[in-house]
Amino acid sequence: MKIDDLGYFTEQASADIVVARNVDAKDERLKQIMEVVTRKLHEAVKELEPTEKEWFDAIMFLTETGHMCDEWRQEFILLSDVLGVSMLVDAVNHRKSSGASESTVLGPFHVDGAPELPMGANICLDEKGEDILVKGRILDVEGQPIENAVIDVWQANDEGFYDVQQKGIQPDFNLRGVFRTGADGSYWFRAVKPKFYPIPDDGPVGKMLGKLGRHPYRPAHLHYIIKADGFEPLTTHIFDPDDPYINSDAVFGVKQSLLAEFERIEDAARGKELEFGDWFWQVEHNFILAKT
Amino acid sequence: MKIDDLGYFTEQASADIVVARNVDAKDERLKQIMEVVTRKLHEAVKELEPTEKEWFDAIMFLTETGHMCDEWRQEFILLSDVLGVSMLVDAVNHRKSSGASESTVLGPFHVDGAPELPMGANICLDEKGEDILVKGRILDVEGQPIENAVIDVWQANDEGFYDVQQKGIQPDFNLRGVFRTGADGSYWFRAVKPKFYPIPDDGPVGKMLGKLGRHPYRPAHLHYIIKADGFEPLTTHIFDPDDPYINSDAVFGVKQSLLAEFERIEDAARGKELEFGDWFWQVEHNFILAKT
Repeated sequence: MKIDDLGYFTEQASADIVVARNVDAKDERLKQIMEVVTRKLHEAVKELEPTEKEWFDAIMFLTETGHMCDEWRQEFILLSDVLGVSMLVDAVNHRKSSGASESTVLGPFHVDGAPELPMGANICLDEKGEDILVKGRILDVEGQPIENAVIDVWQANDEGFYDVQQKGIQPDFNLRGVFRTGADGSYWFRAVKPKFYPIPDDGPVGKMLGKLGRHPYRPAHLHYIIKADGFEPLTTHIFDPDDPYINSDAVFGVKQSLLAEFERIEDAARGKELEFGDWFWQVEHNFILAKT
Repeated sequence: MKIDDLGYFTEQASADIVVARNVDAKDERLKQIMEVVTRKLHEAVKELEPTEKEWFDAIMFLTETGHMCDEWRQEFILLSDVLGVSMLVDAVNHRKSSGASESTVLGPFHVDGAPELPMGANICLDEKGEDILVKGRILDVEGQPIENAVIDVWQANDEGFYDVQQKGIQPDFNLRGVFRTGADGSYWFRAVKPKFYPIPDDGPVGKMLGKLGRHPYRPAHLHYIIKADGFEPLTTHIFDPDDPYINSDAVFGVKQSLLAEFERIEDAARGKELEFGDWFWQVEHNFILAKT
């Protein structure tokens, strides 16, 4: 470390000089975070040697990303997602060794307060898309059913939009629901077969993806948050393995264990029972929770 | 590099997996920038292992920083400044070995279009503060005067605010002016003695400084951008070495070579000539430009 006599800035000791200023921080964790962030930022600048124009372009990119954020749009989460940062944060927080189901990103479209529905309810309120029956069980790592598990599910509609992206077009809480398991740990509900869709790509993050030659699509999936007393909460998706984007999810959310089987069922009688047509899709997937 | 068979995300290979997606980027420089930024971000996450709450706090900090930015406030530049990133970018772009004057940060308060004034003009339009005579010469590295050098100067007023921070309170273009040297390369103008002042600290960056136990003050300084045909432009300050914050500039802008001498002159006759009182301040500083 070479700091000049008066502690003035030098290129060589730049990060040391900045970090030294945080000596009086009351919060040790914040001090640590700022030290690592400062060092990595300075390493990046030294490696890239950005021109002043490139630096200003970066400032403007961050500014536009901030300006894009509002109550219904979180462009910084999107940026974190497409850079794989969200998945990495998920990974370091949910290292699973116990046989529990794997987690994946929350995504920006979860909302609190979705209605709790009776098992079997149809969460599709706009009557668009192909019917699907979704079912499975919530189990512990010994394979025993978990009673009173709360399953919060949400998905995009048949056109690839979540309700909150189409306020006034889709009914409120379209394709969202909360279900609670009984003694057998099983769940089932009716919905529409999910489709691939682009992440919102009309903002700075979408433009960046375009310049990088990357598409903005996420393969078809259903979102789940599953909670039960005495167990680690699980935030995850299930994916359609036949989706054209299954190997290139724009936000890196796919894991092999989250591939589910979407089966086409031709059974007019069963379809009628479900208030579906002569055929429908079915996906069955069990989730295994780790004890806390 | 361990990417699982299908290219799905793994903690270990996280950055490799993300970077591999940029294979089709048309712009090689952008590809390089995103590779370094992605790797450093992932290194920081792996080193810090942020909780999901810490990650979300970071998202909200960036969002609030973006929301603070408008036409007159650039909170991301402020963030870059207080993390020493602006000074580092300045350093890698202006490595001086030739005897030319050193540069420092531009800061967020420069505006284009300040009026060109006759040499000797008083740039103080609000009649507040202690009078100062600012003078010196613009020279090449051989010590020869530079004719037709354009000197763009700006400073905060006696209360520590730039005109653009006090629209409607300060006159437009208060304490800003553009001067052009004659054959002898000399410049002089009248102003007010600068004072230390806080960087705008009512936003997320100011709150962060508070949590880090850092003060928001910049030592007293005058800003200069000096341009002349055939020479590298110079963006710099001169500082008052007697300022209480001279060794702890919130944005790390001070360099030893930019310390000027602020002299108190007791000379009623000269004061009268300058339309000052019986005494005034004087600072003399030469700037040396490198040939392009």
